[in-house]
Amino acid sequence: MLTILLSLGSGLFAQNHPGLILTREGVREVRAAQAAAPLFEAVVAQTRAEVDAEIKAGIAVPIPKDMAGGYTHERHKKNFFILQKAGNLYQLTGEEKYAVFVRDMFLAYADLYPTLGLHPTMKSYATGKIFWQCLNDANWLVYASQAYDCVYDFLTEKERRKLEKDLFRPMADFLSVENPQFFNRIHNHSTWGCAAVGMIGLVMRDTQLVHRALYGLRNDGLDDSMLDNDGGFIKTDGVRRAGFLAQLDLSFSPDGYFTEGPYYLRYAMTPFLLFAKALSNHEPDLKIYAYRDSILKKSIYSLLNLTDAQGRFFPVNDAQKGMSWRAREVVAAVDIAYADFGNDGRLLSVAEKQGRVLLDGTGFRVARDLAKGLARPFVQKPVFFRDGPDGDKGGLSVLRMPTPGGGEWCAVMKYSAHGMGHGHFDKLSYSIYDETGEVVQDYGAARWVNIDQKGGGRYLPENKTFAKQSIAHNTLVVNEMSHYDGKVKDAEAHHPDVYFTDLTGKNYQVAAADEKHAYPQAALHRTVALLKDETLKNPLFVDVFRVASGVENQYDLPVWFQGHLLSANFEYAAATDTLTTLGTKNGYQHIWREATGKPAADNAQITWFNNGKFFSLTSLVSPSDELVFGRTGAHDPEFNLRRDPCFLIRRKGAKSSVFISILEPHGAYNPVAEIPEDPFGHIESVRLIFDSDAYTIFDFRNINGRVWTVFLANQNADKSARHAVRAEGKMYEWTGPFAFRTP
Amino acid sequence: MLTILLSLGSGLFAQNHPGLILTREGVREVRAAQAAAPLFEAVVAQTRAEVDAEIKAGIAVPIPKDMAGGYTHERHKKNFFILQKAGNLYQLTGEEKYAVFVRDMFLAYADLYPTLGLHPTMKSYATGKIFWQCLNDANWLVYASQAYDCVYDFLTEKERRKLEKDLFRPMADFLSVENPQFFNRIHNHSTWGCAAVGMIGLVMRDTQLVHRALYGLRNDGLDDSMLDNDGGFIKTDGVRRAGFLAQLDLSFSPDGYFTEGPYYLRYAMTPFLLFAKALSNHEPDLKIYAYRDSILKKSIYSLLNLTDAQGRFFPVNDAQKGMSWRAREVVAAVDIAYADFGNDGRLLSVAEKQGRVLLDGTGFRVARDLAKGLARPFVQKPVFFRDGPDGDKGGLSVLRMPTPGGGEWCAVMKYSAHGMGHGHFDKLSYSIYDETGEVVQDYGAARWVNIDQKGGGRYLPENKTFAKQSIAHNTLVVNEMSHYDGKVKDAEAHHPDVYFTDLTGKNYQVAAADEKHAYPQAALHRTVALLKDETLKNPLFVDVFRVASGVENQYDLPVWFQGHLLSANFEYAAATDTLTTLGTKNGYQHIWREATGKPAADNAQITWFNNGKFFSLTSLVSPSDELVFGRTGAHDPEFNLRRDPCFLIRRKGAKSSVFISILEPHGAYNPVAEIPEDPFGHIESVRLIFDSDAYTIFDFRNINGRVWTVFLANQNADKSARHAVRAEGKMYEWTGPFAFRTP
Repeated sequence: MLTILLSLGSGLFAQNHPGLILTREGVREVRAAQAAAPLFEAVVAQTRAEVDAEIKAGIAVPIPKDMAGGYTHERHKKNFFILQKAGNLYQLTGEEKYAVFVRDMFLAYADLYPTLGLHPTMKSYATGKIFWQCLNDANWLVYASQAYDCVYDFLTEKERRKLEKDLFRPMADFLSVENPQFFNRIHNHSTWGCAAVGMIGLVMRDTQLVHRALYGLRNDGLDDSMLDNDGGFIKTDGVRRAGFLAQLDLSFSPDGYFTEGPYYLRYAMTPFLLFAKALSNHEPDLKIYAYRDSILKKSIYSLLNLTDAQGRFFPVNDAQKGMSWRAREVVAAVDIAYADFGNDGRLLSVAEKQGRVLLDGTGFRVARDLAKGLARPFVQKPVFFRDGPDGDKGGLSVLRMPTPGGGEWCAVMKYSAHGMGHGHFDKLSYSIYDETGEVVQDYGAARWVNIDQKGGGRYLPENKTFAKQSIAHNTLVVNEMSHYDGKVKDAEAHHPDVYFTDLTGKNYQVAAADEKHAYPQAALHRTVALLKDETLKNPLFVDVFRVASGVENQYDLPVWFQGHLLSANFEYAAATDTLTTLGTKNGYQHIWREATGKPAADNAQITWFNNGKFFSLTSLVSPSDELVFGRTGAHDPEFNLRRDPCFLIRRKGAKSSVFISILEPHGAYNPVAEIPEDPFGHIESVRLIFDSDAYTIFDFRNINGRVWTVFLANQNADKSARHAVRAEGKMYEWTGPFAFRTP
Repeated sequence: MLTILLSLGSGLFAQNHPGLILTREGVREVRAAQAAAPLFEAVVAQTRAEVDAEIKAGIAVPIPKDMAGGYTHERHKKNFFILQKAGNLYQLTGEEKYAVFVRDMFLAYADLYPTLGLHPTMKSYATGKIFWQCLNDANWLVYASQAYDCVYDFLTEKERRKLEKDLFRPMADFLSVENPQFFNRIHNHSTWGCAAVGMIGLVMRDTQLVHRALYGLRNDGLDDSMLDNDGGFIKTDGVRRAGFLAQLDLSFSPDGYFTEGPYYLRYAMTPFLLFAKALSNHEPDLKIYAYRDSILKKSIYSLLNLTDAQGRFFPVNDAQKGMSWRAREVVAAVDIAYADFGNDGRLLSVAEKQGRVLLDGTGFRVARDLAKGLARPFVQKPVFFRDGPDGDKGGLSVLRMPTPGGGEWCAVMKYSAHGMGHGHFDKLSYSIYDETGEVVQDYGAARWVNIDQKGGGRYLPENKTFAKQSIAHNTLVVNEMSHYDGKVKDAEAHHPDVYFTDLTGKNYQVAAADEKHAYPQAALHRTVALLKDETLKNPLFVDVFRVASGVENQYDLPVWFQGHLLSANFEYAAATDTLTTLGTKNGYQHIWREATGKPAADNAQITWFNNGKFFSLTSLVSPSDELVFGRTGAHDPEFNLRRDPCFLIRRKGAKSSVFISILEPHGAYNPVAEIPEDPFGHIESVRLIFDSDAYTIFDFRNINGRVWTVFLANQNADKSARHAVRAEGKMYEWTGPFAFRTP
């Protein structure tokens, strides 16, 4: 460690300001620009207007009091964004008024900060001083350090001394040594903490802080049983390392997957990239961008690929829906990736959709190259991510196929490790998307981020009691218990296992995984696939869920379809007078039982309508299965939950069992033309041919009598293994864990 | 009558083909076009592609069997559109293959038609032959007559004789003399019937049919008690006239308002305009366009103004939501209005949004003038429509004000006559729209038009049991009974009365009306207004609902807000374990009671979130009022209803009473930025100063302590009348039925 630190130091003190994110070279490039960069110019103009308005309104540095959504919170939050913008404007335009504004606001903070105790809310596992949690204080410092860098040379030495003594250094200590439970984790909170401490350290030329940021606190004295506010553990079993480098090692899988999911990866990306960029500027010899086989670059591409056709992140684990690659954090990621990771023209087309760029040298280059017409389309591809630092803790697959007319059919299967405090008990769950958005949803988090009226913008109680529970997801629930009995510690101790992935088949993409620990008495094995065929108008989604158990259980397999139910091929009785809940705990208490039915045949089929399209789900069922239509909203005393529908197949008293469903998108309807096209599903039935622990064979038939057959080997993923099964008096033979025979 | 008919005849027989809708002059103009008309060319290309595909697929004229949504229905429907298109293409391109296709399809129909009895479904009050109802058969003939006109000269005389003898003449008779209950009404069904009979008559040079179409059947022998499928009466009390001219006289108010509402006006517009255009072409002396002070022109502008900012029709009465000015019927209306009613450049901007034009001379002119840059913006204005043929049966007002940033705040108050079979029991109801769409909704119809899975695409049972009932609307319900006890006959015998309208105030727009017959024991008086003021960021909606009664009643005032409830300023208890219905009949049986609360003070305030914006409703309440949150979905055995929320103020044991509410839009939030702007309402409270049958005075206060006062004279609409009221020890004086005093 010492070696690196010394080498760091040598670079550090040779630097001039600005040199953290905006650099002297960047400023020179922008100021000397000959080439047109209209998007950059627009951002400069817009930022000028915004900052000028703030200058006009005057500096406000109120005594901290409120939760997120409240005045003091939102004011301090706005301040750090404005500080960073004003600092950059000072450098880019040379106008002193911006430096004066930054200086004066910093001095106001330097007067306030020493007077502050902990924030009065005291609701966080790591209460901040300016904000209710250290996390937001760290956000503040990450942005403020950039502003300080930009006005460093403008300030007198006396001013700098005051700011560093009364504000920056105490804040850096507060966020690290005084709050080890915040700083010394492998968690996005700590990434912000390390970036904050390290970035201000780089500007202040404080090697001690930079060292602390890179390597963490040596002895944090933290107990393994400590929890954060989300119910996550502060320390991971067996992991004693901390600091930025440890986070680069342990936060991502070798494929750049982030176990908390894309919503939090997007959030964590900012401190990772900003601190990395600052280190790259100050100490190129550290080669931080190349660290761990260019893990930061991989993580940016992973983030961009974990989106639906509209660029919205798949809302796995705790995630607010609608967050997308248009977010400011992704603007930063795309601009830095473009400028520093090889000028990939596909990133320019994402930047174009974002419609804005960073107010620095990377943003300028993106804008300039966009104007040069160097953009190429960014097309999300089917992709398989391993999870876990060593890539051995399950994974997540995104299956995607184009549909006629330029649409998309996309399935996400999640068999990654538990997403720490933000993890859901959703092992082997899937969700489905088309070109407009969700078709079969992942509920996401029960939270209205920053909306004061909803629990101060924090996670709502229903996040734990519903959104995290297994029944809230499209996965199997045994005996109305959530996976791992809803215990984070147990879920973190295990993970699903990758069984087999093939995203390159001519007619199919398939992902299969095992979950052997979620239930002591039942092993779960799921295969999901997209299938296509010339004679099928649209690709199909196929789901085969096998559960192996030696004892009788109740199995519930929900499908959280989005839209309005049009029809079902079975009789059901709706609860017309009184609604009651589907159960009493583990999320069931939040679901109203709207209707209950019984299969009329071996197949249950429902059709729903959403966003101008029809969807039909055809499921293999047993005569004794119960078919339930449910809806969220029970035990929701403050209207925190959406009212969303689900369809649920319930099988009682079964040991080993298999569930097979086919989902097809079809047709179109809009209320202007009022002419339905193709409103009926094309798949008529699914038929089980053979099922054992080792093999599952089934076929499905369309309305024209064509039959397709699917063969699964459930216990041998060897792609070259040959299998033969006798069933219905015939020998079925195939090779590998998955085969799809078209008519 | 004879005079007109003879004059008609003289024009008629002088005409050549085509001369019905597409004319020889139109064809010549298009073929000789020098000016660019790219939109028209696109339509020609698109229509060619569509018709060529049909020619390739071959003619299909199946034996009628299905309801709407089913194969034979959709096939015959497609056929008539394609016939019309192929006929026009023949004229415009001169390519014979189109004429051959039309001829052959007509000959197939001529073979089939004589073999048909009534359509096997037998579900309509006027069952058709090709379709399940005469209405659709009339649609067929309106389009087919245009195709026949286009290929008339191409056909041999023998072919024409066969078509007229076996197909057109029998169909025209079937739709008129054989179905007087369909033909001889004042109703959109009959408009189609008259246009069909009249248009084929013009092409066939059959003066008898044209006469029948213009003047109706002399003796229809219809009983006054007959009903159609929607529960509407076949005959209107006291009205014996029928035929096209009677419909022009009786279907519209003098302002061009159509009592069934814009959804049906849009539908009825096609036969009105097509037959009028055909009459105008064949017999200019009739001056049909100038008839009744240019009533058709007025009706087109009324249709275009009955839209939200997105061009979607206000869904009053039976209406499918989402229907908009992009509909094909409105394309026809806009093109004809542009070409024949004075080349209003504002219509071109609507045509531009429609993105298509008619395949005829009017469409050509619109496309050409669009290309010339003659379009001007079409800005919907505040507008008041009288209802009733003589303009004395109530009305409907659209209040609209711009909001900062280019948005809109729009309130629709409905106090028109009952919309015949499509009328709802929604007297004095309002609905609210912003620039994105609905804020406080009118439920519209319980129907999925043409979606076979939902009751064959017809009106669903819940349309009568819920959507038409008073509680489904934003209006007062007395003793849980619908207006006029839900009886169409009674509702048609009366109507609300216009009390006062002023859409020109500097700071306000206001509409007020009385409904004295909906309840025998209670008179209703409602005033709605939009208010603005420099110190208010956004315009407000204000609702003052007075009920005068000498006996104690229960009053329910629902607000069908669209969105997710964020907060309420009163305690409420949610039904967490069991949901029960709000009542047992008159629509109440379809509403789940999700929560019940009690006011904490004189005001009840709720805030909700929808489409990126916040909305706060502040209502004056009594301590004993019950505050209910409800949601549709009870007694809905086939999932026909949407699950939509409402907030309801219930007042029990009250005689005369007043309800005052203020609704304000505010702020913004999106899940990408996650930064709420202005998430709290600005109106703090509403206070009643004085209330009597004659006067209501109240003020409201914002969070900065500013106070605005509103004065209403409830029984004297004289704008110059001076009023003085002593209340709270002060004299309040104002002039006219409404005054708004800003601070």
